[in-house]
Amino acid sequence: MNTYDRIIERQRVIKSRLCTGLDTDISKLPSSMQSMDGMLEFNLRIIDATLPHSCCFKLNFAFYEQYGNAGMNILGKTIEAVGGRVPVIADAKRGDIGNTSAAYARSIFEYLKCDSVTINPLMGRDSVQPFLEYSEKLSFLLCLTSNSGSADFQRLVSEGEPLYKHIILKSKVWAASNCIGYVVGATHPDELAAIRKIVPNNMLLIPGVGAQGGDIRRVLDANGMGPAVINVSRDIIYASQGSDFASAAASKAEYYQDLMKEGL
Amino acid sequence: MNTYDRIIERQRVIKSRLCTGLDTDISKLPSSMQSMDGMLEFNLRIIDATLPHSCCFKLNFAFYEQYGNAGMNILGKTIEAVGGRVPVIADAKRGDIGNTSAAYARSIFEYLKCDSVTINPLMGRDSVQPFLEYSEKLSFLLCLTSNSGSADFQRLVSEGEPLYKHIILKSKVWAASNCIGYVVGATHPDELAAIRKIVPNNMLLIPGVGAQGGDIRRVLDANGMGPAVINVSRDIIYASQGSDFASAAASKAEYYQDLMKEGL
Repeated sequence: MNTYDRIIERQRVIKSRLCTGLDTDISKLPSSMQSMDGMLEFNLRIIDATLPHSCCFKLNFAFYEQYGNAGMNILGKTIEAVGGRVPVIADAKRGDIGNTSAAYARSIFEYLKCDSVTINPLMGRDSVQPFLEYSEKLSFLLCLTSNSGSADFQRLVSEGEPLYKHIILKSKVWAASNCIGYVVGATHPDELAAIRKIVPNNMLLIPGVGAQGGDIRRVLDANGMGPAVINVSRDIIYASQGSDFASAAASKAEYYQDLMKEGL
Repeated sequence: MNTYDRIIERQRVIKSRLCTGLDTDISKLPSSMQSMDGMLEFNLRIIDATLPHSCCFKLNFAFYEQYGNAGMNILGKTIEAVGGRVPVIADAKRGDIGNTSAAYARSIFEYLKCDSVTINPLMGRDSVQPFLEYSEKLSFLLCLTSNSGSADFQRLVSEGEPLYKHIILKSKVWAASNCIGYVVGATHPDELAAIRKIVPNNMLLIPGVGAQGGDIRRVLDANGMGPAVINVSRDIIYASQGSDFASAAASKAEYYQDLMKEGL
């Protein structure tokens, strides 16, 4: 089953659009776990605690790369620990000229065995294509991101449409709708509603709920019945810095699961 | 001395704008070296052979990440082997929301001890700022890339200027001219000339000569006396697939050094 269908099926069964984001920063862990071994144990316990409420996990590569090879070892072991029970999104925001993107795609899909990836499409079609050739995977292109800097370039208007719409309009024909998706920040609900109309069947990855301040009610209204996963990272995994961090994360994940179940 | 000054000084001493790109792909190595050990040995010998002709080296991370941790070990050892003799550019094209870009910056500048980085600026100022805070380093923003896909989004015109010019006009005030640079493909000499006028003192990283077909003569004319490093990867490191690969690479590097020395 391809990644898209696996997400849809998981969402149907557990009634959850929640993607739990494993942006693990050692300095934010309970004090007894502030080590590389502690980081792995933290991830494994967070996965066990939040899996019942999550339709997928997202790993932001920067948080692992910052600890060098030791961090990348933990990234690999974390993916292994999910063990295919739900899809894993490699939040790596890669993108380069064709032969280089092909190498990134091999790294993420073949070496790390991730099910999905985030891609920065600034370099255009030939930078995205090598990822799309893995048609059973799901490649999310950055479209309108959740941060304040999204206004700098993504909103520049050309031929009557902002750049983020050009990204969608141009790329949506590059692959079937079940293997290309878009990242749209929860902080932009009005634009999300407009995007949803252009790509009703493509999966949206919606970050920015929780620590970044996106309003979940407005996101759900804007998205309607469309296929979407909504990511929450810090607000779940750092729900407690005490020894009860796993149960606190489970409770927070359940809270978001319930909040987002409408229409599933 | 900051990275910018180190490049300028090295260019003055050896009369070379050449950046040798270590995009090492095991399948293209001499047959006896097609292994992880062989990949490291290849890099070390290429560095020794081309260093006399190079003002810096550029490592494209994808080529190392595709081999997982073993590849990243080689990346680290390759940087160590350069040993600070010339600056190393991490061609990683990273960029994410602020706290995530900060983690990428730590990975590249602190863990890997690179001197320079390439950044994808699509996510705007707060995605670039964490790199610029390392003001002794040199951060190259993607501007107009060498590939065909650069036409898809980078050339979209808004308020009379294409996106790649907006990237420059907006970002050039984010940091001093000696810590922010731009990637401009050698395949676009006319645009390079126009960019050079907007940022006369910022370093340009110019890829696309050699295998990608950029015309070195037109690039030099377009760049004039401006600070720039011109990258050549495949055409140098794969100059021969025989046991003479290192001396062939040295000859090719010397050829490019000589071709590009004008005005130094």
